[in-house]
Amino acid sequence: MTINTVAVVGTGVIGNGWITRFLAHGYDVIATDPAEGAEERMRESVRRAWPFAEEIGIANEASLDRLTFEPDLAKAVGDADFIQENVPEVEDIKQTVLQSIDQHAKPDAIIGSSTSGIMPSVLQEGLQFPERFVVAHPFTPVYILPLVELVAGRSTTDQTVERAKQFFEQMNMSPLIVRHEIEGHIADRLIEAIWRESLHIVNDGIATTEEVDRAFTHGAGLRYAQYGPFLTFHLGGGEGGMRHMLKQFGPALKKPWTKLEAPELTDELYEKVVTGCEKQSGGMTMSELDQNRNEFLIKLMDLVKEYWPQEQESSRV
Amino acid sequence: MTINTVAVVGTGVIGNGWITRFLAHGYDVIATDPAEGAEERMRESVRRAWPFAEEIGIANEASLDRLTFEPDLAKAVGDADFIQENVPEVEDIKQTVLQSIDQHAKPDAIIGSSTSGIMPSVLQEGLQFPERFVVAHPFTPVYILPLVELVAGRSTTDQTVERAKQFFEQMNMSPLIVRHEIEGHIADRLIEAIWRESLHIVNDGIATTEEVDRAFTHGAGLRYAQYGPFLTFHLGGGEGGMRHMLKQFGPALKKPWTKLEAPELTDELYEKVVTGCEKQSGGMTMSELDQNRNEFLIKLMDLVKEYWPQEQESSRV
Repeated sequence: MTINTVAVVGTGVIGNGWITRFLAHGYDVIATDPAEGAEERMRESVRRAWPFAEEIGIANEASLDRLTFEPDLAKAVGDADFIQENVPEVEDIKQTVLQSIDQHAKPDAIIGSSTSGIMPSVLQEGLQFPERFVVAHPFTPVYILPLVELVAGRSTTDQTVERAKQFFEQMNMSPLIVRHEIEGHIADRLIEAIWRESLHIVNDGIATTEEVDRAFTHGAGLRYAQYGPFLTFHLGGGEGGMRHMLKQFGPALKKPWTKLEAPELTDELYEKVVTGCEKQSGGMTMSELDQNRNEFLIKLMDLVKEYWPQEQESSRV
Repeated sequence: MTINTVAVVGTGVIGNGWITRFLAHGYDVIATDPAEGAEERMRESVRRAWPFAEEIGIANEASLDRLTFEPDLAKAVGDADFIQENVPEVEDIKQTVLQSIDQHAKPDAIIGSSTSGIMPSVLQEGLQFPERFVVAHPFTPVYILPLVELVAGRSTTDQTVERAKQFFEQMNMSPLIVRHEIEGHIADRLIEAIWRESLHIVNDGIATTEEVDRAFTHGAGLRYAQYGPFLTFHLGGGEGGMRHMLKQFGPALKKPWTKLEAPELTDELYEKVVTGCEKQSGGMTMSELDQNRNEFLIKLMDLVKEYWPQEQESSRV
C-alpha cells in the first residue's frame, strides 16, 4: 500500500514537528487535537518550522496547503494510510486514544506512536488490529533530527516494521530498529540517565542547572555530536582503544561516580564491548578515527561559537 | 608568580594532550614518564596533534622545540611553575606520585591533577604544601576541547583556584569551578551515568555497542553539542519550557526508564530547575532559543555528513 495521507493525532511539540516533516516530504497531512485553540497553535508552530524544513530540502510537491485540521478524531484518521499518535505520555490516555484510532482507521493503515518510553506491547493491548501498530519514537526537533526508534510489540508484524522503516527512510530519517522492547527504548534510557543524574546534582546542591549544562556541553557534549558513548571511550583509550580504556576505567565502575549501579564487567561483557567498538570503526585505524574526530571538532567549535547563546560569558563563575 | 615552565607528569592520552596545549600557548614544557619508550610515543603523539593546535591558533612564541623529556621526576618538576599530573586513575598511585611532585617542586608551584573522579581532598592528603593543589580535569582531546573542571580540596586556597583559572583562561579554555567536591566531579558523573546505562543495555542483550551509539548520536548527541540536559528539556517543553516539561515528564521519574533511581521531584527541586533554565536563557524567548537551535543543528548536520564515519551506511539494521 502506498502512503499518501498521514494523520497526526496530538499537536504538541512532537506532533507539530511530525506535521512539518510529513508536509515537507509531500504528504497530505490531517492534524487532530481536541484542545481549544489547538489548530491555531499548530499552524503557527508549523509556519515557524517551515523555513528550516525548506533549508534542509523539501519535496517538489510539498506545500503548507496540504495541511488540514479536523477536530474530530474519527474523521481525521478515517482516510489516512499512516497515523502518528503524540498524545501525553500517560499509559491510559495513550491506550484510549490508540483504541479510537484503531477503530476508525482503515484496517491496513499503520499506526505509529511517538511514546518516549512506554513499551509497544502495552500500548497495543486492546487494539482490534494490533499487528499494524509500532512505536516510532522521534527526537525534537522532529523536522530536523534524523533518528527515529522503531520498536515492535509482541503482536506487531515484521511487515509493519519494514513498511514503517521504508516510510521514514524515504523522509531522510535514520530508523533504528530496536530488537527488544524495553521501557525507555534505547535513546531515552541514556537521556533519562543523564537527566536523573543532573537532577541529583542540582538536588544535592553541587551545581546549578547552568553549571551542569556547561560541564556537559563544553566537553562531552561536543564529542557526542559525532561519536556515541562507546566509540568516544574507544578513542579515549589511545592506541589500545577500548581494551585499554576498560583496564583504566573498568575499576571506576565500582565507585560512586554516579548514583547508577553498574553491571558486573564480566569477560563476556568485556568482549562484547571491545569487539563492538572494533567493528564500529569499520576498518579505520585509531589514528584515522582520531584524525576524523579532530577535524570534525575544530569545525564544530567554530559553529558553536557562532550559535552558543550569551551563556558563554555570563556563565563564567 | 608568572607561569613560564610547565611540567607534565604521565604521558598517556591526557598527558600528551596537555603537552600539546601548553606548547601551543607558548610555554616551555618538561614531560616525564617512567615507562620504557614513553618519550618516543609522547613525541609522536604531540607531532600528530600539532597541526590541529596550529589550526585553532598557536602563540607566536610557540614551538615544538620548547618540549623536553626528563625521565627523572624530581628533575622534571624542579623548575616548573605549574605541574599537571596525569598518572593512572588509581588512588594510591596518584597519591604517591603527587607526594613526590610536592617534595621536589618549588613550594609555590601549582600542582594540578587530571583525575577524572577522585576528590581533591583525598589526593592532597599527605602533601607538604596541599594549599597549592587543585584538580584540573580536562576532556579528550585536551588540545581542542575547552572545558576544564577546577575542584578545590579542603586545603586548597582560593588563590590557587584563581591562579589556575587565569592560567587556563589564558589558554582559551573554559574553566568551570566546581563548588563542592564530589566523586566524578560534575561532567564525569553524567558521562559515567551514560556509560553505565550503555553497558547495562549491551549486557542485557538489548542492543549492540553500535546500535547504542547510533541511538545516541543521531538524536540527543547532536543537540548536546549546543545545549546541556537542562536547556534541552527546557526547549523540549515548547512555549511552556521546563515548567511544562516537568509536568509532562516528571511522572516518568518514577518509571524504570533507566537503572538509575531519580531524586524526589520536590517543590524546591522543581523551582531550582525551572528558574535555573529561565536564567540560563539570558533573556532569549522560547522562540529565539528554538530558532537558534534550529539554525545551529542544520549547519551541524551538514558538518556531520562530512565527517561521520562509514557507520552511516553500514549501521542500517
